[in-house]
Amino acid sequence: MYAIGVDFGSNSVRALVVRCSDGVEVGVAVVDYLSGDQGILYTAKDPFVARQNPADYLYGLERSVHDAIEAARAHSGFSADKVVGIGVDTTGSSPLPLDRRNRPLALDPHFKDNLDAQCWLWKDHSSFAEAQAITERAARDRPHFIAKCGSTYSSEWWWAKIWHCLNVAPEVFDAAYSWAEIADWVPSVLAGIEDPTDIRRGICAAGHKALYSDEWGGLPDAEFLASLDPRLAGLRDRLYAQTFDASAPAGALSPQWAQKLGLPQGIAVAVGAFDVHYGAIGCGIGEGMLVKVIGTSTCDCAVVDMARETADIPGICGIVPGSILPGYLGIEAGQSAVGDIFKWWVEGVCMGDAALHRRLTEEAAGLRPAQSGLIALDWNNGNRTILVDQLLTGLLVGQTLHTTRSEIYRALIEATAYGARAIIERIRDYGVRIDRVVCTGGIAEKNPLLMQIYADVTGCTMEVAASAQTCALGSAIVASVLGGAHDSLAEAQLAMTSLRPEAYEPKAENVEVYNRLYGLYRILHDGFGGMTAPVDVSAVMKDLLLLKAGA
Amino acid sequence: MYAIGVDFGSNSVRALVVRCSDGVEVGVAVVDYLSGDQGILYTAKDPFVARQNPADYLYGLERSVHDAIEAARAHSGFSADKVVGIGVDTTGSSPLPLDRRNRPLALDPHFKDNLDAQCWLWKDHSSFAEAQAITERAARDRPHFIAKCGSTYSSEWWWAKIWHCLNVAPEVFDAAYSWAEIADWVPSVLAGIEDPTDIRRGICAAGHKALYSDEWGGLPDAEFLASLDPRLAGLRDRLYAQTFDASAPAGALSPQWAQKLGLPQGIAVAVGAFDVHYGAIGCGIGEGMLVKVIGTSTCDCAVVDMARETADIPGICGIVPGSILPGYLGIEAGQSAVGDIFKWWVEGVCMGDAALHRRLTEEAAGLRPAQSGLIALDWNNGNRTILVDQLLTGLLVGQTLHTTRSEIYRALIEATAYGARAIIERIRDYGVRIDRVVCTGGIAEKNPLLMQIYADVTGCTMEVAASAQTCALGSAIVASVLGGAHDSLAEAQLAMTSLRPEAYEPKAENVEVYNRLYGLYRILHDGFGGMTAPVDVSAVMKDLLLLKAGA
Repeated sequence: MYAIGVDFGSNSVRALVVRCSDGVEVGVAVVDYLSGDQGILYTAKDPFVARQNPADYLYGLERSVHDAIEAARAHSGFSADKVVGIGVDTTGSSPLPLDRRNRPLALDPHFKDNLDAQCWLWKDHSSFAEAQAITERAARDRPHFIAKCGSTYSSEWWWAKIWHCLNVAPEVFDAAYSWAEIADWVPSVLAGIEDPTDIRRGICAAGHKALYSDEWGGLPDAEFLASLDPRLAGLRDRLYAQTFDASAPAGALSPQWAQKLGLPQGIAVAVGAFDVHYGAIGCGIGEGMLVKVIGTSTCDCAVVDMARETADIPGICGIVPGSILPGYLGIEAGQSAVGDIFKWWVEGVCMGDAALHRRLTEEAAGLRPAQSGLIALDWNNGNRTILVDQLLTGLLVGQTLHTTRSEIYRALIEATAYGARAIIERIRDYGVRIDRVVCTGGIAEKNPLLMQIYADVTGCTMEVAASAQTCALGSAIVASVLGGAHDSLAEAQLAMTSLRPEAYEPKAENVEVYNRLYGLYRILHDGFGGMTAPVDVSAVMKDLLLLKAGA
Repeated sequence: MYAIGVDFGSNSVRALVVRCSDGVEVGVAVVDYLSGDQGILYTAKDPFVARQNPADYLYGLERSVHDAIEAARAHSGFSADKVVGIGVDTTGSSPLPLDRRNRPLALDPHFKDNLDAQCWLWKDHSSFAEAQAITERAARDRPHFIAKCGSTYSSEWWWAKIWHCLNVAPEVFDAAYSWAEIADWVPSVLAGIEDPTDIRRGICAAGHKALYSDEWGGLPDAEFLASLDPRLAGLRDRLYAQTFDASAPAGALSPQWAQKLGLPQGIAVAVGAFDVHYGAIGCGIGEGMLVKVIGTSTCDCAVVDMARETADIPGICGIVPGSILPGYLGIEAGQSAVGDIFKWWVEGVCMGDAALHRRLTEEAAGLRPAQSGLIALDWNNGNRTILVDQLLTGLLVGQTLHTTRSEIYRALIEATAYGARAIIERIRDYGVRIDRVVCTGGIAEKNPLLMQIYADVTGCTMEVAASAQTCALGSAIVASVLGGAHDSLAEAQLAMTSLRPEAYEPKAENVEVYNRLYGLYRILHDGFGGMTAPVDVSAVMKDLLLLKAGA
């Protein structure tokens, strides 16, 4: 038996065909979106706008699955009729306005060229004012709504975006019968659902982005929404009143899409989820494991048995029952910029290319901890966890007239490692076990220097998932269980996920130095981040020089 | 009548022939030193060592004066017999070991190749341990000794260097009958002095570097020196018991040197002084004027009538009666790195050249105050004034993923401007008037962007001296008075110095923004510099973003 996972990224779709018995990846295909700049629609009028054409999703879905199946045919034993399920993961929160018949407004010729009728991609920040208003209103009237998302509602999220659409494009808002996250909409298309209110929505997107919780009866109450705008309250009933975790299907593959994809009609279509959540499943997540998806930014996932009493964890951007594994609280944290900071330094400041990335990495690898005499804060794109503050910026201290760009490069890597440690400590401080750390994503696979520094700074062994496409793999794993190939997600994960044989072990001598440097990082972090005011920074430069002398 | 000024720099000697009636510069010549790396002797054994071969001084003196006179002959009215005096300024503290007959030990074949027998150039820092020991001993036993030099004795200075020589090269120390600053030694050579104890030492070097003061009977008492090392006390009597300001000659030009240089025998040889002090005279210094010599580092000079009661100014590296103008307290402050910071950024980090300096300057000039969202501390080479702490380092805050290298370049210029403002405020806080600021040095002449930022940050009009060689001009001015061309230094300055017609005026709208940015600078300055501990830095990043939004 085989399962298919389809991963909708920011620039392309990836489809993966996996053997259910052992997780062997027998076919893969990547299809770039056709519209905009690498799939993203921008406008000179507003630098915060980032949209996507939903036609690209349909094109990418059909083409990538088709090509992945073609590739799989090279494997002996594979045939398309052995596929038992298909799962989908996407970016998010990426809401899409829909008509009465579950069709994107953007596919209607009347709205084809209207940016506000497209999908509002996760990284669209045009609704910052609405996000702030939601935060303030919730803090006053419904503090429990935001207690589980770091007490701050983000401009990247569902309600802020839909409200902003209402404010700037009322004709789109009025024409939209309903809205869906693309994580929910794509599976509904595969399942042939023709009424948006029939879409089986995932708890992952609903719980993390739409303030949905069984604790308060689902979505925010109409009174609260009306206090933002009465028309938002009117939309509430055309959305959803129930959500589903990975144990439930979104439906069965429709005849139309079965034919398009060359797959058996009626096979299981999994409920959709965000990429990193299914990616965590593709890494084999379970209690006691932290999964780190390390790329341009970093997302951290952990789970805790719902039977356990678990307090809200301040500064953690999401705690949602069942959002990752059924029966477990899903905990999500993250760092707003990781790879993006190195890219900024190498390409934006040093004006280099991939060759300079390699050269600075080599030179930085030749340095010992503390040898640069530098320490940095990793806040060039704000701080998502644990400070939940976009209005924070970068800091570098310790420069002399001899400081080199590779020393600064290493200091920036170390800064992201300190940020990673702050997250681990915060989660542990609230009683959640982290016994193992498993990493995935481009940087985890390709940057041994960073991985060793992370091990040395956190004191944790850094393991790396074997698959280079853990998100699509996770989607396929969920589909394989729904398709009957495994009795449980745990069993499927055991069979279908694996780790690279080599891991990054902390080196005792480095751990000791980094413990001291982390102490200095926390002085700066807590002081500039507003956790400790006032703070004594008078010894920071001298301590850096002492540690440098020791190195 | 004409006067000659000879300026001994770190890499070359410059001789200038000036017409006494109006300061017209009729001849100039620059001669590079022959030894070492651009005139400086280094050793792989100790990166702090920087020495010079005194033979280079004799060669450079003879050659540069000869060539300057040759050049002056092109001017109608000039002839060498109209030269009435010669003045000398040099780097310092740069002590040189001498034999019984006022000859440098280094010219003795026995010591020719001994680095410790050469001149110990100002930037030699090998005696940091001795400097610290002097600071500690003085703080305990003679606090008044260091109260006028920021309470910290520097490894660049006289006693630390001579004591280090005693410790590492006792054979040199034992062979040296006496020592002299090259500022004192070169004039003594011109005057034909053959016994080091006959050298007429300048108060400038003695007061700023050798802890000499009439208040405590000249050089530090033998008991104090003996507490460092008994042999230092033994040296005391072979140094000097009296010093001279610019109103006294070092002697008269000897027959031998008159012949070598083609100048009239017996003309006045001025007492020597450090380059920036005579440079201040070449800028027309008087009460109420701050002279800034802006180059790789910056030196600030001011004077106060000795008749006024003036308190010690904490953090100011030197206050010495008569060290600049006779009858006035000379006040010296400075910034350890200015041009060196820009050079570090452009050449050391961005790996660029002069073309990149120009490009970043152009781009930085296109930015408004606060537009970069950045603020930096100018401590890449420590802080000389007002914190007197070499163990401070650079800091940059406010980086985003969009920060450019020209924004950082501008932030570094602004940082040095804030440092300049801190010095001005400190001097004014102690009742010393600063009504005008006159700048000289390479950066003052060639960098209008920096000069405008300095005007906007300090709120002071930045005037620029007309001469491109104010140090040599100042030496010539002093010599012109001694040679009888003028009745007083004030009269000579009035006749022989001038300013560029255009000055940099503060722009009111920029001053306002920079006042707020300077407030943030002082939070960081006082916090990381140890003046305020603890300090509230929690609003720094947010305030920078607000100011950026306003720009």
